[in-house]
Amino acid sequence: MKTVLCYGDSLTWGYDAETLGRHAPQDRWPSVLQKALGPDVQVIAEGLNGRTTAYDDHLADCDRNGTRILPTILHSHDPIDLVIILLGTNDMKPALCGTAFGAVQGMERLVELVRHHAWSFDSEERPDILIVAPPPLCETANTAFAAMFAGGVEQSAMLATLYADLADEKGCGFFDAGSVARTTPLDGVHLDAENTRAIGRGLEPIVRMMLGL
Amino acid sequence: MKTVLCYGDSLTWGYDAETLGRHAPQDRWPSVLQKALGPDVQVIAEGLNGRTTAYDDHLADCDRNGTRILPTILHSHDPIDLVIILLGTNDMKPALCGTAFGAVQGMERLVELVRHHAWSFDSEERPDILIVAPPPLCETANTAFAAMFAGGVEQSAMLATLYADLADEKGCGFFDAGSVARTTPLDGVHLDAENTRAIGRGLEPIVRMMLGL
Amino acid sequence: MKTVLCYGDSLTWGYDAETLGRHAPQDRWPSVLQKALGPDVQVIAEGLNGRTTAYDDHLADCDRNGTRILPTILHSHDPIDLVIILLGTNDMKPALCGTAFGAVQGMERLVELVRHHAWSFDSEERPDILIVAPPPLCETANTAFAAMFAGGVEQSAMLATLYADLADEKGCGFFDAGSVARTTPLDGVHLDAENTRAIGRGLEPIVRMMLGL
Amino acid sequence: MKTVLCYGDSLTWGYDAETLGRHAPQDRWPSVLQKALGPDVQVIAEGLNGRTTAYDDHLADCDRNGTRILPTILHSHDPIDLVIILLGTNDMKPALCGTAFGAVQGMERLVELVRHHAWSFDSEERPDILIVAPPPLCETANTAFAAMFAGGVEQSAMLATLYADLADEKGCGFFDAGSVARTTPLDGVHLDAENTRAIGRGLEPIVRMMLGL
Amino acid sequence: MKTVLCYGDSLTWGYDAETLGRHAPQDRWPSVLQKALGPDVQVIAEGLNGRTTAYDDHLADCDRNGTRILPTILHSHDPIDLVIILLGTNDMKPALCGTAFGAVQGMERLVELVRHHAWSFDSEERPDILIVAPPPLCETANTAFAAMFAGGVEQSAMLATLYADLADEKGCGFFDAGSVARTTPLDGVHLDAENTRAIGRGLEPIVRMMLGL
Amino acid sequence: MKTVLCYGDSLTWGYDAETLGRHAPQDRWPSVLQKALGPDVQVIAEGLNGRTTAYDDHLADCDRNGTRILPTILHSHDPIDLVIILLGTNDMKPALCGTAFGAVQGMERLVELVRHHAWSFDSEERPDILIVAPPPLCETANTAFAAMFAGGVEQSAMLATLYADLADEKGCGFFDAGSVARTTPLDGVHLDAENTRAIGRGLEPIVRMMLGL
Repeated sequence: MKTVLCYGDSLTWGYDAETLGRHAPQDRWPSVLQKALGPDVQVIAEGLNGRTTAYDDHLADCDRNGTRILPTILHSHDPIDLVIILLGTNDMKPALCGTAFGAVQGMERLVELVRHHAWSFDSEERPDILIVAPPPLCETANTAFAAMFAGGVEQSAMLATLYADLADEKGCGFFDAGSVARTTPLDGVHLDAENTRAIGRGLEPIVRMMLGL
Repeated sequence: MKTVLCYGDSLTWGYDAETLGRHAPQDRWPSVLQKALGPDVQVIAEGLNGRTTAYDDHLADCDRNGTRILPTILHSHDPIDLVIILLGTNDMKPALCGTAFGAVQGMERLVELVRHHAWSFDSEERPDILIVAPPPLCETANTAFAAMFAGGVEQSAMLATLYADLADEKGCGFFDAGSVARTTPLDGVHLDAENTRAIGRGLEPIVRMMLGL
Repeated sequence: MKTVLCYGDSLTWGYDAETLGRHAPQDRWPSVLQKALGPDVQVIAEGLNGRTTAYDDHLADCDRNGTRILPTILHSHDPIDLVIILLGTNDMKPALCGTAFGAVQGMERLVELVRHHAWSFDSEERPDILIVAPPPLCETANTAFAAMFAGGVEQSAMLATLYADLADEKGCGFFDAGSVARTTPLDGVHLDAENTRAIGRGLEPIVRMMLGL
Repeated sequence: MKTVLCYGDSLTWGYDAETLGRHAPQDRWPSVLQKALGPDVQVIAEGLNGRTTAYDDHLADCDRNGTRILPTILHSHDPIDLVIILLGTNDMKPALCGTAFGAVQGMERLVELVRHHAWSFDSEERPDILIVAPPPLCETANTAFAAMFAGGVEQSAMLATLYADLADEKGCGFFDAGSVARTTPLDGVHLDAENTRAIGRGLEPIVRMMLGL
Repeated sequence: MKTVLCYGDSLTWGYDAETLGRHAPQDRWPSVLQKALGPDVQVIAEGLNGRTTAYDDHLADCDRNGTRILPTILHSHDPIDLVIILLGTNDMKPALCGTAFGAVQGMERLVELVRHHAWSFDSEERPDILIVAPPPLCETANTAFAAMFAGGVEQSAMLATLYADLADEKGCGFFDAGSVARTTPLDGVHLDAENTRAIGRGLEPIVRMMLGL
Repeated sequence: MKTVLCYGDSLTWGYDAETLGRHAPQDRWPSVLQKALGPDVQVIAEGLNGRTTAYDDHLADCDRNGTRILPTILHSHDPIDLVIILLGTNDMKPALCGTAFGAVQGMERLVELVRHHAWSFDSEERPDILIVAPPPLCETANTAFAAMFAGGVEQSAMLATLYADLADEKGCGFFDAGSVARTTPLDGVHLDAENTRAIGRGLEPIVRMMLGL
């Protein structure tokens, strides 16, 4: 049995910009990936609306800073074979970070947290890491989201290239979710059901490869 | 689709006192419960070794205080129909709390956190809560565990009664895991595979009832 | 006896830009409101210089993030009939937030904290909330304040409209302090005694109405 | 105008062990003191149920550690002429501290926080401090409180002597509330209305003296 | 024996932009200062890469906010005769602060922390404070640093003047490290060995004067 | 040049129970060790009064929990060849921990923090760790210290054996400071100058061996 942890934000949780609710379980990308990989792999979804890589946000009843919660989540699902990190979209909010460069620094810290984690077991085997760049933001007529993510269309367009470089440098896998999915103009940030599912399908080959399946 | 969140400690994670590792997935009680309830219910396991109800512990690379992590976990798995809380064993460590009474106060705070959570959606439907008392500690020749849980045999024996009263007072469901499982003398705290599975089987009827299945 | 809590910043504390000290007690708006409402209402002032809605600021010997202190203050003055929140000015500091939009998000979180507070009593009666927009910043020759609040004149001018919308959406009362008071050009942010008193007088009718007096 | 800050716990808030609610405003000791001192003194009540001197407690929706909140409260009510600190009862809970000696150490830290506070103004005048020992706990048939405060009857009996010594050493005023009030056997900890009022009356002379009235 | 504490960032630690390692001990400015002052003075180096004056940064395995660590460091090296603070460079990162004005506010808070520190001893003698402005950033072809410190060339050029004013106002010593050292174009921020040594030599006269040597 | 970090509490800082001040620099054990090892080794002293291994203490103007400050100190003195940890005495305070067993768990966490630290450099060389057991507490007529360390005489007597076992298990060096020094009956906890110096002399051989000198 292999275990895959999906650490993400609302794109992983499955926020639906149309209903302002949550996509059906079978439409969320971790579920699609689970189905594709079959019963010998356990895919665990840890998606939190508003989660950033490494930046504080006190606007909700939870801790959105990805660096503070990750160690606890790693322990809860240990042993883990692969950690997929799909974060960066919320870093585009200028009040929190606002630059692709800042998101890359936050992603690097998350990689460091996985690599240096003090695991429960002393096993030599440690999880591989797959960095996933979120699909770039797009223009939207939703003024609240446009304000909240001002400048995000330009900055998020750089994420894939910068994350790919980071993955190379750190020996991580890389996947560009923007190669298979695009954000909805309803709010410029989120994914409809079809585009959410596409990420699960798109990830299958590289996840199989990284798990040695 | 109904969603059940299992919020717990090493008894939920599946710590194996014999191998010092983790029980196989099919032996952990949330998996057993998942299988018993079938595909129309999603059972989510959030078990962290060493988690307490409400007490700080800085001895591991994670946040073991159950009150600080719960709001984030509630958001990550929202919408939730039932929250099962199986905690209290680590409260028996005298350096952290050391009394059944303290564990009950911590459990009450966790119930309060679920009831007052600022959910993402404004839905009227809120999760029910099922309080589960851990099986009482037993005597052990393991000196490290005996020291770490000094006084725990007596104190933990009171948990079921006190939790039952709390559940009554707060309108929560209650299940005594000690009615179907017993701790192993290997460390006096944990459960072997058979006793872990027994909790999943034992929970099925009350969970079905609380979910209206 | 009705209880009104005034949760605010230096405008509520009574900072005097001329003396760099504090306005006399009878000139602060909570005192004016207290006098206007008479002895059957208790008006409690909790104004902290530099307080923001939801943003960290480590530049003083206190916790200026309004979300972290509010729950403790709510408990200290429970039972409360009405919570008046006059915040947002310090959110205009670009190093902390810098946008009216961010202040609205912070205000929304404060409303959420009041609504979801785990009160000491289980009473059904919960305090109403009155959102007050601070008077817009004005131009100033004070270079330190001009630098500290760069962009604040434009952003703060939007607060009243945005807060009014939020109040509508959340079922809160709303009052625009800018309708009765204006900031002093001495520092572009604060109020002289007359303008401070004006807020107390201006609030009386809506507070009476919300208290059912 | 002189300002007196009353920093305390449920004895200051006015918890009523009979109704499990709050004493009427006129029965709380800060109100009695206010009335006795007249309109030239402003008496500010900051009482929080469960507040300790310096010990963490995560069992309620607030921060009960007196050292973390005091600096913010000092700023909110600056300028202050006298700080009255009536704390120590909750330190008697063995899960938090459990000894009179620990309460004295916590009280010493609070004195230090007032003395070293970085005030908003650079005035030379700094508030005096009046340490008040809470009335000793008494035996109770309330099993929850008896458990929560196990050992507290003996330990709390030592508080007055130890606080008096601390006050001498630190140049603070001292008042023993146990000289005028006694705790109710209903829960062994709290004060009925008459005993709460007695503290306000008892404090009047020393407060007048310390304020130079 | 006199004690001098050097509280700083990578300029004090001795980051070498060429080797991406650390300058040799004899090249770091605290060592140069130690040698110049001789054995009757103890110079203690507390330089942390990435340290800011007062701003949070969660991008490394340490606490980079200078205000949170300083009190602990003051205690560890008490009694101290002189505290030299060379910080501000990392405040130039726009994601953290981004303005010279913000760095000055942070420096003011650090001065306040030294002045109001609750020392172990009750001695009347308290350390003097020497504020040191870092050499201004320069243009660089290093794109990562250019992005991380966007706008820093202009902002850092203002630091010396603003720090000098603050030192005057607060009764602190002042030294402009930019008068003796310049940053390397390799990354636009750091100092080569020669320029690092120059700060130690440059500081000697004012440190001697402030220590009364 | 080799670097040795001494991470400790008042025994490392050099608290003098007779003067209630600090031992002269040449009497503190890190200075003695520095002199014995000569100029090719740099010995850095980081001793904080009241520091514990892993337990919170809010009674002073600093962070006494050894686990929260260590990562920052490791960064500040990186690269480090040897970390000497002499802690555990303050863990004997029953209000914080109170058992030798708890001190061992805290020490284990500190070892883990060094081993898993995310260093600035990617070098393969990592510091060795030398665990030092403090000299056992002794009986004292000082009632404040006797109360603060109740039970500490018995518990501290077990530290050397338990730390030795931990060092074995974790591949660390071990030294029993109780083999060369004894605590003073003045307060039962601290060391006079001669006994402090003795630790420096006693450590020299094992430190030389661990550094390969």
